[in-house]
Amino acid sequence: MDRDTVSWDEETGSIEFIDQTLLPGEFRVVRSDDIEELAAAIRRLAIRGAPALGVAGAFGVALAVHRSAASNLPDLRQEASRAANLLKMTRPTAVNLAWGIDRVLSRVMAASSIGEAQDAAVREAAAIAAEDVDLCRAIGAHGAALLPETCTVLTHCNAGALACVQWGTALGVIRSALASGKEVSVIACETRPLLQGSRLTAWELAHEGIDVRVIPDSAAAHLMRKGEIDAVVVGADRVTRDAVFNKIGTYMHAVCARHHSIPFYVAAPYSTIDAASAEDDVVIELRSREELAWCGDRQVLPEGVGALNYAFDATPLDLVTAVITERGVFRPPLTLEAMGGAQRII
Amino acid sequence: MDRDTVSWDEETGSIEFIDQTLLPGEFRVVRSDDIEELAAAIRRLAIRGAPALGVAGAFGVALAVHRSAASNLPDLRQEASRAANLLKMTRPTAVNLAWGIDRVLSRVMAASSIGEAQDAAVREAAAIAAEDVDLCRAIGAHGAALLPETCTVLTHCNAGALACVQWGTALGVIRSALASGKEVSVIACETRPLLQGSRLTAWELAHEGIDVRVIPDSAAAHLMRKGEIDAVVVGADRVTRDAVFNKIGTYMHAVCARHHSIPFYVAAPYSTIDAASAEDDVVIELRSREELAWCGDRQVLPEGVGALNYAFDATPLDLVTAVITERGVFRPPLTLEAMGGAQRII
Repeated sequence: MDRDTVSWDEETGSIEFIDQTLLPGEFRVVRSDDIEELAAAIRRLAIRGAPALGVAGAFGVALAVHRSAASNLPDLRQEASRAANLLKMTRPTAVNLAWGIDRVLSRVMAASSIGEAQDAAVREAAAIAAEDVDLCRAIGAHGAALLPETCTVLTHCNAGALACVQWGTALGVIRSALASGKEVSVIACETRPLLQGSRLTAWELAHEGIDVRVIPDSAAAHLMRKGEIDAVVVGADRVTRDAVFNKIGTYMHAVCARHHSIPFYVAAPYSTIDAASAEDDVVIELRSREELAWCGDRQVLPEGVGALNYAFDATPLDLVTAVITERGVFRPPLTLEAMGGAQRII
Repeated sequence: MDRDTVSWDEETGSIEFIDQTLLPGEFRVVRSDDIEELAAAIRRLAIRGAPALGVAGAFGVALAVHRSAASNLPDLRQEASRAANLLKMTRPTAVNLAWGIDRVLSRVMAASSIGEAQDAAVREAAAIAAEDVDLCRAIGAHGAALLPETCTVLTHCNAGALACVQWGTALGVIRSALASGKEVSVIACETRPLLQGSRLTAWELAHEGIDVRVIPDSAAAHLMRKGEIDAVVVGADRVTRDAVFNKIGTYMHAVCARHHSIPFYVAAPYSTIDAASAEDDVVIELRSREELAWCGDRQVLPEGVGALNYAFDATPLDLVTAVITERGVFRPPLTLEAMGGAQRII
């Protein structure tokens, strides 16, 4: 893409982000210097995707500290904590969000002056953003090696450049495979209810001339059965020691991939792995009925009928062929030892 | 429901049908005396659902004959054949459509005067409609016996009253189970891209006070894993000797149901069974990209990005627990003998 999904504008001391709710109709970069505005943007999914949330959370705390009128360090720390809590509450399932926030918050807590705290916060957030770019490239390289020379890859939701700072995780694997000379076509599941597959994945791939076609989520199994899918690659919002949490529908793809003996890969930053937690420790966000009730201006769900709108589902690790991280490819069983002590990061 | 999905208006000699594209926002009954208009209505899915299509096709041929200005029997027969071909072309996968059309056409061909042909055509079509009501009740009774006393049933698309004349096939099973005193809750998959699950199934069930909640299609596997689904009941557009053709997504549900050891039932009129054909003989209708490109007034698929919009998929019979028809419950393997010579009906 032509610009980062989330970035810091040094000149104005504010955050800039692509408003993903407007895609594909409009490409708009929003600049914000208000923490409440940023929280609202995360809540309405203007910024989404686990790695991008980590970066947005990090810049969010930096913004709070940078904009603070506090005259002493305890007040500044309290303000930073408040901002951190506000931001963490926006998306409870996404582990990267809390992780990015906490990394910056700990710098603020360790600083011995207001000026040092402000500098350190922005520097740490910028470092997280830069690391994200590097790690997506590394995820891409590790994952690309797993794909056949010529293949069609099915993906769900958007684990692309728009979910990160650049390059992407699942789509990073596809970009790296293409860059290495492999021939890759993409089947993007549209991803109900918010259609990140159509709106974001198809948009960012087509923008770069990558071959992509969109299907209803429910058509994936049919294409698998017809032999048209060689691999499934998805992102992850959290990987516990027993399950992958990702966009609702991921589990269905995993079950169907197993039924058809198709490899099912999860591509995610190492920071997504939360090996200290188990599936039962994670609360799955239940989003509003309204996301299923309207199609643009048209009401499609009758008045008074309820909906079950889980944002994520859990895929047990035994259905996952491999988890692709910047530190390498991990194949289940994912023990703490095998993951190199992934429990430390939480 | 308060009125039949498709019916013949004796007074005006025309067809009346509920325009299902307007639901749930508007309940409108359209009256038509034009065969081209009826074909267009079927093409844009104002009338849909295998049994309703059979009845609509039957009344369509009756309409052509009834409205004909032909002055001799050969001309009338030719006109009826033309109408039959026009109507058959509208939805090539649905076997009931051709079946209903051919039943009326054979009456026209056998008649020895214009007046007799007109009478016989309307009578035969009305008989098909009346039979549909009876057979849905019979399907319901057979299917209801298969459900537990208290259960949650997952269904896909709309195999309800709106897909038939009244009562429904898959939803007929649910209605009959409720009528027999069982406690049944329904999970309706919204059914992309045209959302018949939200717009039609949720509408007709809620209208009668039946407990129904809507989910994205991709969430079904997640609910199965959580133990919240006791059975899957779907309709069928065609049952060949090796596969069930039904709305895209049906196969995915069948694979996931098998993975979770949940019974997967297909409820359909006996006329849906085409045991003389195999899966490979059936052409799956590929519908337009536009159905995936727009959400109401909003463009969600970027310009230039293609879509694969299969209307149906094929579920191999070995994933089907039973096929519920008005003649009883058939369990695979569905041989010609076991089905009582089902090949005759084509």
